[in-house]
Amino acid sequence: MKIQPVKGTRDFYPPEMAVRNFIIDGWKAASVRNGFAEYDGPIFEYLKMFQIKSGDEIAEQLFNFTDRGGRALAIRPEITPTLARMVNQKINSLPRPIKWFSVPRLCRAERPQKGRLREFFQWNIDIIGEGEVLADAEVIFTTVDYLREVGLTADDIVVKISSRKMLAALLRLIGIAPDQMDGLYGLLDKRARLPGETFEKMIAENVSDKAKREKILDLMGAGTIEEVGSVVELDAEVQEASDELRRLFELLDTMGVGRFCRFDIGVVRGLAYYTGMVFEIYDRGDQLRAICGGGRFDNLLRDFGGPSIPATGMGMGDCVLGILLEEKGLLKDAATTRRPDYFVAYADRAFLDKAIGITAKLRKSGLAADFSYKGGGLKKQLKEASAANTKNCIIIGQEYDNGELVVKDMTTGGQEAILEDKFWAEFQGRKG
Amino acid sequence: MKIQPVKGTRDFYPPEMAVRNFIIDGWKAASVRNGFAEYDGPIFEYLKMFQIKSGDEIAEQLFNFTDRGGRALAIRPEITPTLARMVNQKINSLPRPIKWFSVPRLCRAERPQKGRLREFFQWNIDIIGEGEVLADAEVIFTTVDYLREVGLTADDIVVKISSRKMLAALLRLIGIAPDQMDGLYGLLDKRARLPGETFEKMIAENVSDKAKREKILDLMGAGTIEEVGSVVELDAEVQEASDELRRLFELLDTMGVGRFCRFDIGVVRGLAYYTGMVFEIYDRGDQLRAICGGGRFDNLLRDFGGPSIPATGMGMGDCVLGILLEEKGLLKDAATTRRPDYFVAYADRAFLDKAIGITAKLRKSGLAADFSYKGGGLKKQLKEASAANTKNCIIIGQEYDNGELVVKDMTTGGQEAILEDKFWAEFQGRKG
Repeated sequence: MKIQPVKGTRDFYPPEMAVRNFIIDGWKAASVRNGFAEYDGPIFEYLKMFQIKSGDEIAEQLFNFTDRGGRALAIRPEITPTLARMVNQKINSLPRPIKWFSVPRLCRAERPQKGRLREFFQWNIDIIGEGEVLADAEVIFTTVDYLREVGLTADDIVVKISSRKMLAALLRLIGIAPDQMDGLYGLLDKRARLPGETFEKMIAENVSDKAKREKILDLMGAGTIEEVGSVVELDAEVQEASDELRRLFELLDTMGVGRFCRFDIGVVRGLAYYTGMVFEIYDRGDQLRAICGGGRFDNLLRDFGGPSIPATGMGMGDCVLGILLEEKGLLKDAATTRRPDYFVAYADRAFLDKAIGITAKLRKSGLAADFSYKGGGLKKQLKEASAANTKNCIIIGQEYDNGELVVKDMTTGGQEAILEDKFWAEFQGRKG
Repeated sequence: MKIQPVKGTRDFYPPEMAVRNFIIDGWKAASVRNGFAEYDGPIFEYLKMFQIKSGDEIAEQLFNFTDRGGRALAIRPEITPTLARMVNQKINSLPRPIKWFSVPRLCRAERPQKGRLREFFQWNIDIIGEGEVLADAEVIFTTVDYLREVGLTADDIVVKISSRKMLAALLRLIGIAPDQMDGLYGLLDKRARLPGETFEKMIAENVSDKAKREKILDLMGAGTIEEVGSVVELDAEVQEASDELRRLFELLDTMGVGRFCRFDIGVVRGLAYYTGMVFEIYDRGDQLRAICGGGRFDNLLRDFGGPSIPATGMGMGDCVLGILLEEKGLLKDAATTRRPDYFVAYADRAFLDKAIGITAKLRKSGLAADFSYKGGGLKKQLKEASAANTKNCIIIGQEYDNGELVVKDMTTGGQEAILEDKFWAEFQGRKG
């Protein structure tokens, strides 16, 4: 019986697994050095939990099922609802700000496409309990800190930043009714991916008044925060939001990542739940989907039955990122990070048990050590060691008649015979 | 709307996540130093794939669902079927022996009990393509190598080893028919967990002949490989299997883990698919379920539509292990491994941006650095740094009027003022 993997999922053979580990280990390291603590939740939760925040769009993308107890469950398509549930459960005992990260495995029942699979990994960082724009800046900095660490430069990627708070206030000034807002966010969010004509047609379906429509199009053409003011006369609310945005850019400059960032009113984020700054990171070539996205969502905990506490965060999947890193040649080192410290070769099958014992002792001391099951000629074994990029070989050959091991440095090719007792006595010093 | 997690799943808040990372990082490190390469598959696969190897028992424990394309899928309850599928797909290009490990997240729709949850993590190591008992020894060694590394000794745990091949041959000698074997394995596997009377009653239901039954009970009372011979007269097949077992114990001695291991004919493993040695590891107090189990299964690849290639492996869940490590006080250090390198404190709100810039620069250089959003008194900030077990503090105070930072060693309490330029100039040397 021949069985296939399910379409849109991935098999991680050791080379692909090395790439996945390279990406995820980097996410974890960047999170920790930026002061985030790791959390995780279950891979499945109550179906209804995933419908609170994201409405129909997410609900259609769920793998859901009913367990033997009749519970309606779903595999998580995102971890933010879990985060909200977990934080709400312990809100009184968690010191704030809560700076948490997670690297969950997520599943979405989408049609697989380039950069979008039905199963993927996503880096999430969130800061809860801090309403100042400083927390937003830290989320963006941490994200860029990771991308920079893996080798991407300001020539490779751009952080596009806007403010949902400002956009909401502007649309209100233009005269858009509150109940039209959510639909409009979804549409404006798609603008960059739609032909201009299609976009204008869709806007017309949403906003019947021509004057309002033109103002919206003018607004979306604004290249700077200042230009926004030339489209609509700003009131105090817009002013406050744009001041916040200016402070955000100032902080990003202070943090040394200003050259990665620019204002882009076209970054809207489709979901209704954003309340402040929003951002997305793209490859400069604009060939790929967004590498990641995030923003402020001050109502999240409240929507999940908790108190009203501000929050801001980011999510980055491994698929688009992986494509970009591959294209830029930044995955070359991913597979070669794990190399054996020792290979124990034996000239004669009679030395097999000796080789096994030495290998076991090396491993016990924490070193990566290997030997050949089959043995065969020494030359063949050394070739095997070399192919695995092993650092050192221990050879058990004729010298062992005098109790000596031959230790060979595989980098320099140099070798020396040493009494076995002496080898172990000196071992702590030469380890690694 | 208040939402609960699903019964039998776990929320990993940062302290629990630290324990999970401690366990899984240890599994990964032990695997790598023992020469295993990491792989992983999708969290869900075709339902039918999980029914091949394990029959009804596993099938009843599946979370299964149908996707929009009408495919019958299930969340993986184990990774071995995925391993078989993946190896079969590339069998001609993979160099043998294939030594692979994985630390999959698995789900089973069981009733949650102590040490058994509906979602857990499991360490899997497998060696494919090597029929010699040396591969079995390496699987057991690697398992013990990990358990020893986390602090468990031969006084804490015992590896109980037997041979399914020998048991099968013995039962055949006693006169058990081939079609009775699988049912009997399942029953004998439960012996240690059943009251003697119940066990004997169940045996009677399976084996009607009293003489055969008594021989089985005598056999299960054998304390050594030698004692087996006093119950039934051995034929060549049993002899071969018992010779293999003896060689296995000899190899485990050579590897330095002999004192952890003993023969126990009561270790049967319920599943039909084992073909050689079988083993389970228990706490010496026998208070918990098995910490792990494994054995040789030479027909696995063939059962999944591939060639007939020998294989041996082990699986260890995180639940029983976690309970044991907790009981033995071996999780104390798990939570304290990640400590910040620097905390940047500022005496005055006017220095906030300076603190932000320094923190960002430290993080950019790969160090874990923090600062306080709120500021407040220096004393309060230093207390916060101390509570987080930070190594060093940088204080931006009145000395900064002269361009000096104060660097405080939080371990010794010693501190010095240093010109900021000089601090960065010397930074590579003092890093960490």
